[in-house]
Amino acid sequence: MRARDFGLVCGTLPTGAGNAITDVPGVRVGHQTIRDGEVNTGVTAILPHDGNLFRSKVPAAVHVINGFGKSVGLVQVEELGSLETPILLTNTLSVADCAKTLIRQAIAANPDIGRTTSTVNPVVCECNDGVLNDIQAFAVSEADALAALHAADGGVVAEGAVGAGTGMVCFGFKGGIGTASRRLVIDGEDRHIGVLVLSNFGRSGDLMLPDGTRATPDKRPVLPVEETEKGSIIVIVATDLPADYRQLGRIAKRAGAGIARLGAFWGNGSGDIVLAFGTASRIDHDETRDSVPSAMLNEARIDRAFQAVAEATQEAILNSLCAADTFQGRERTVKQSLAAWLMARRG
Amino acid sequence: MRARDFGLVCGTLPTGAGNAITDVPGVRVGHQTIRDGEVNTGVTAILPHDGNLFRSKVPAAVHVINGFGKSVGLVQVEELGSLETPILLTNTLSVADCAKTLIRQAIAANPDIGRTTSTVNPVVCECNDGVLNDIQAFAVSEADALAALHAADGGVVAEGAVGAGTGMVCFGFKGGIGTASRRLVIDGEDRHIGVLVLSNFGRSGDLMLPDGTRATPDKRPVLPVEETEKGSIIVIVATDLPADYRQLGRIAKRAGAGIARLGAFWGNGSGDIVLAFGTASRIDHDETRDSVPSAMLNEARIDRAFQAVAEATQEAILNSLCAADTFQGRERTVKQSLAAWLMARRG
Amino acid sequence: MRARDFGLVCGTLPTGAGNAITDVPGVRVGHQTIRDGEVNTGVTAILPHDGNLFRSKVPAAVHVINGFGKSVGLVQVEELGSLETPILLTNTLSVADCAKTLIRQAIAANPDIGRTTSTVNPVVCECNDGVLNDIQAFAVSEADALAALHAADGGVVAEGAVGAGTGMVCFGFKGGIGTASRRLVIDGEDRHIGVLVLSNFGRSGDLMLPDGTRATPDKRPVLPVEETEKGSIIVIVATDLPADYRQLGRIAKRAGAGIARLGAFWGNGSGDIVLAFGTASRIDHDETRDSVPSAMLNEARIDRAFQAVAEATQEAILNSLCAADTFQGRERTVKQSLAAWLMARRG
Amino acid sequence: MRARDFGLVCGTLPTGAGNAITDVPGVRVGHQTIRDGEVNTGVTAILPHDGNLFRSKVPAAVHVINGFGKSVGLVQVEELGSLETPILLTNTLSVADCAKTLIRQAIAANPDIGRTTSTVNPVVCECNDGVLNDIQAFAVSEADALAALHAADGGVVAEGAVGAGTGMVCFGFKGGIGTASRRLVIDGEDRHIGVLVLSNFGRSGDLMLPDGTRATPDKRPVLPVEETEKGSIIVIVATDLPADYRQLGRIAKRAGAGIARLGAFWGNGSGDIVLAFGTASRIDHDETRDSVPSAMLNEARIDRAFQAVAEATQEAILNSLCAADTFQGRERTVKQSLAAWLMARRG
Repeated sequence: MRARDFGLVCGTLPTGAGNAITDVPGVRVGHQTIRDGEVNTGVTAILPHDGNLFRSKVPAAVHVINGFGKSVGLVQVEELGSLETPILLTNTLSVADCAKTLIRQAIAANPDIGRTTSTVNPVVCECNDGVLNDIQAFAVSEADALAALHAADGGVVAEGAVGAGTGMVCFGFKGGIGTASRRLVIDGEDRHIGVLVLSNFGRSGDLMLPDGTRATPDKRPVLPVEETEKGSIIVIVATDLPADYRQLGRIAKRAGAGIARLGAFWGNGSGDIVLAFGTASRIDHDETRDSVPSAMLNEARIDRAFQAVAEATQEAILNSLCAADTFQGRERTVKQSLAAWLMARRG
Repeated sequence: MRARDFGLVCGTLPTGAGNAITDVPGVRVGHQTIRDGEVNTGVTAILPHDGNLFRSKVPAAVHVINGFGKSVGLVQVEELGSLETPILLTNTLSVADCAKTLIRQAIAANPDIGRTTSTVNPVVCECNDGVLNDIQAFAVSEADALAALHAADGGVVAEGAVGAGTGMVCFGFKGGIGTASRRLVIDGEDRHIGVLVLSNFGRSGDLMLPDGTRATPDKRPVLPVEETEKGSIIVIVATDLPADYRQLGRIAKRAGAGIARLGAFWGNGSGDIVLAFGTASRIDHDETRDSVPSAMLNEARIDRAFQAVAEATQEAILNSLCAADTFQGRERTVKQSLAAWLMARRG
Repeated sequence: MRARDFGLVCGTLPTGAGNAITDVPGVRVGHQTIRDGEVNTGVTAILPHDGNLFRSKVPAAVHVINGFGKSVGLVQVEELGSLETPILLTNTLSVADCAKTLIRQAIAANPDIGRTTSTVNPVVCECNDGVLNDIQAFAVSEADALAALHAADGGVVAEGAVGAGTGMVCFGFKGGIGTASRRLVIDGEDRHIGVLVLSNFGRSGDLMLPDGTRATPDKRPVLPVEETEKGSIIVIVATDLPADYRQLGRIAKRAGAGIARLGAFWGNGSGDIVLAFGTASRIDHDETRDSVPSAMLNEARIDRAFQAVAEATQEAILNSLCAADTFQGRERTVKQSLAAWLMARRG
Repeated sequence: MRARDFGLVCGTLPTGAGNAITDVPGVRVGHQTIRDGEVNTGVTAILPHDGNLFRSKVPAAVHVINGFGKSVGLVQVEELGSLETPILLTNTLSVADCAKTLIRQAIAANPDIGRTTSTVNPVVCECNDGVLNDIQAFAVSEADALAALHAADGGVVAEGAVGAGTGMVCFGFKGGIGTASRRLVIDGEDRHIGVLVLSNFGRSGDLMLPDGTRATPDKRPVLPVEETEKGSIIVIVATDLPADYRQLGRIAKRAGAGIARLGAFWGNGSGDIVLAFGTASRIDHDETRDSVPSAMLNEARIDRAFQAVAEATQEAILNSLCAADTFQGRERTVKQSLAAWLMARRG
């Protein structure tokens, strides 16, 4: 089930064919889900294209909404405006193992790394799934990370309690992986903004649906003010728009609007990170020309992309909630399904 | 009329006594409204305290949501974390005259400025009221700026089409000045977050009320995608919480959540600027000690302030819309009142 | 006299033909010098090209080394990556009048500003010349700003105590306007990095010449630790390299290295601002295409530009010092000429 | 041998007793050196105090001079202004293993991590020692990281080719670990700025000694312009000054001035990262008060700290060069000792 199956629509722009990040041509997503007793975690991989990313990088930008997070690789993306490995999502304490997998993969494909050319910058983002997962078990192995990379394809993206989303919680409901997209026409051609989220944020009781009603998993009408937001959200934005680094950064920033519309305020304890990449151009690691032709969006048209990413982020989060079933995790902790709540509401 | 008079409530936290920025003790607000033929503009002054601000500065921080704007003084606030003049709000082309007024006032009170001590950093923020005001008339004089400063008091804040808000437009309705506040308990004592906005942003048709309905001034159900957001919003946040520079910056950032909840996506053409200052401590220009005692909020409590500023910003914008009557400006352009729309809806 | 006349060479790259910012084709510089009793101040104008800048903007980026400064227009340059007016340099308290001149000029050439198109973002940078100039006199008029703009040409740039540099002080010596350039070969063609500085920074006794000797105007061998740095420096970087916003920002940042090599540490009280613009491409205000072709530097070649801007900044500052004669200003304050010091050293 | 043994003095401020980062009371440093055939690498640990850092954090700030680097943990330090693990330095590809060590250590001391309290943010910084070390061997184990932590003490800091510095190269000479300090008097009491660097940056031929002479390892008088800077430098700044986050960030920034004075221009390929922490106060993870007393430096005194960190960074780098002997690494690559060069110059 997805948000639109419950009549929940975010904004006014048309979606891509699959309403998914894979509507951006070339983008692939793979999951590795790990469920074993108290362990409920996993890895999700996002690949901008199916070539050698180290040799053929894509433009990228980061927007840190709230930096209470342990993602790696962001500093270099901010400086150089490029992404040179796939993106892995996982739980907070498994970042190191996922980073090593990306490094080993890059070296296997590019034996000159760290010898006759520069080192490689792995990008791994994370949320803390400790509520439903025994995070201290360090259950994600390098083999799991590799499995997520190998599972990647450009079709329908599994949502909810899969991959890195297995143990995540959002607004007190079961969260996880969600995706959505918007279609734009640029110079007469279809282009897309695709979003994939790992949703693990939001206080129970704060979720505001697009129809103006609050959805709370446990019937509490008002929050105790002492409850703090402890989650996180990772938002991956892909686009085939011709946007440069500055524009990708501006586009990334608008994911925050989508999150806020659901009732969140980007809480202190939340690592809310947006990473946007473009597929319309490549950055050749072995470029021999001194200057390189490029393209950017007419800035007077960028509002289309801003609106698209705000809408798609909001909807991707709702999709992550609608796709997840009620889930029992570590120490028998149960997180309800928003889909169940919505079906109950519908009667 | 204010938003709550129409049943529009933003969030769950209690308001201050006046639901206004002046609930923060010591904060004063003054307006100078200029209406003369095609001229519909003005100045609004916000004063953190009634002493000599140059000699007794207050801590401050800036958050630029979208920097398509011409405010002055922000660079130094970001570097030094302090505010040393009142804040003036006005139209885009009158920033220079307002800045000169602040400089002259500061020199009059502190003849050593630029001679035996440093120069002064005037802070003026702006929106473009060119839709309703003949902005090329440069109608704001230094005398007008002075009048706004002299009019400042700590009581009820006039809202809507007053002061700098006289010619502003918001979501296609008549916008302008709005204010709201939230009350927090810190170490057993009441503290406040107060917000004052100059609202001039938002595409017609994008306004989403807290009850989930769209409010559009002209019955257009769907926006033509080519319309771009051209407005701006200035958000002034005052607080008597013991927050340091980093914390004030984090608090300021959450104003963006309040704006997004109303349906905006911080458009390209919008100068969306937040300036937050604290009144719980002072920075003495003539400090003789090498180190200075200070206080900060326990970071684990800062979510209260985040939620407060998001809610108060959202409500201050709605207040700016509810207070404004339908307005005819330059070239007979008419902007409807949201209050009228709400009353019509109520039947 | 210039630094090279005294054997002072910064770095190893070749200079442009004039060793000046005007080596970048199309760039023009104009000065208006104001000397009248206690008044010693002025305006300097830098124009990226001789067309209508509002309609045909140039890419630009800002780097704030230390933000104790009152420059205007930087926020929008950072957001949009473009410059749409000439740059004016002046004293701290004359920023407002210079900004108004730029606004009036832009409106005169583009009557649609603020009416049917956006407003204009004037860029004015400043240093405090209060040591030698009666800054409270507000001696710079809009006519003076206009005179600097009209005086602009692409030839030899007057240095030292001219234009905005008239009353500036640097490392205890007479400072002011200086310029320098470096020539680079990109894809087989000559390109340039040109720098113009307004030098007004540095503690007396901190100046370190490229040959490793300290130059102090008053024979004090060691600084009293209590002396604080109170000046400022504005660095304008022009280039015809095909650099995008991110690259221009990275290039701008390296001006700080040139400043540091002279012995400065970017003091607390110093407004150290770098503004870089490119002339290799234009941003059409009335662009009708959705996407726009562009070009950027191969990042693996950007070290050339980094080195160039560090060297040219260091040399431009030395040029500002070498060009200025000993100067008597406000209240008979005298600032020595570094040229005189160097000639005395040479014996 | 240290720089002062060769008459190389940076600036004018007095040093601390040991001219080392350990002059800051409580700060400890430990090394683990790994040399085995083609492997020449290691780990260096810096500990702000000897207590439980997760429960008793220290204030911290980051300044990224150039972000071509793979350090981890910086995003959270920037958001929260605190450091909650020791800092580990190592080679680029060993960051993940060092991070895991810090996580495991933190969990061992704080079993509630990721279960009933937040996760932990490990901070690991790196340079690429691939010129002298077989970096693809992933030779640093978690046991090595632990050994560096256990070796930490507050005495004399070993410099040169030790710990993380084992395989580093700087300006074409053998680089590595260096340290220096400056002593300041605040409110009548001695305080310190201590710096530790991992030096691995600078093109051969660019090194400028404080006496104005260039030092080049291979007699090349002029650089081929095609050589790019590929190294990195990590600068750790410790201080017992009462500086808040904003002030620590400003202090950290001035390390860049020290680097620039040696002839570097913060090259494109260099990960130049500064991390500053303060020991004058603690941030209690389990703080129960809503507001917390604090202290900050009188901003008018901060120039002392700026000058101190610029001088100490410059000197720490020279110390790293003077302490290292000529070194043969991977594939018989030899990097000369600057000490040898200086002794030869001395004749």
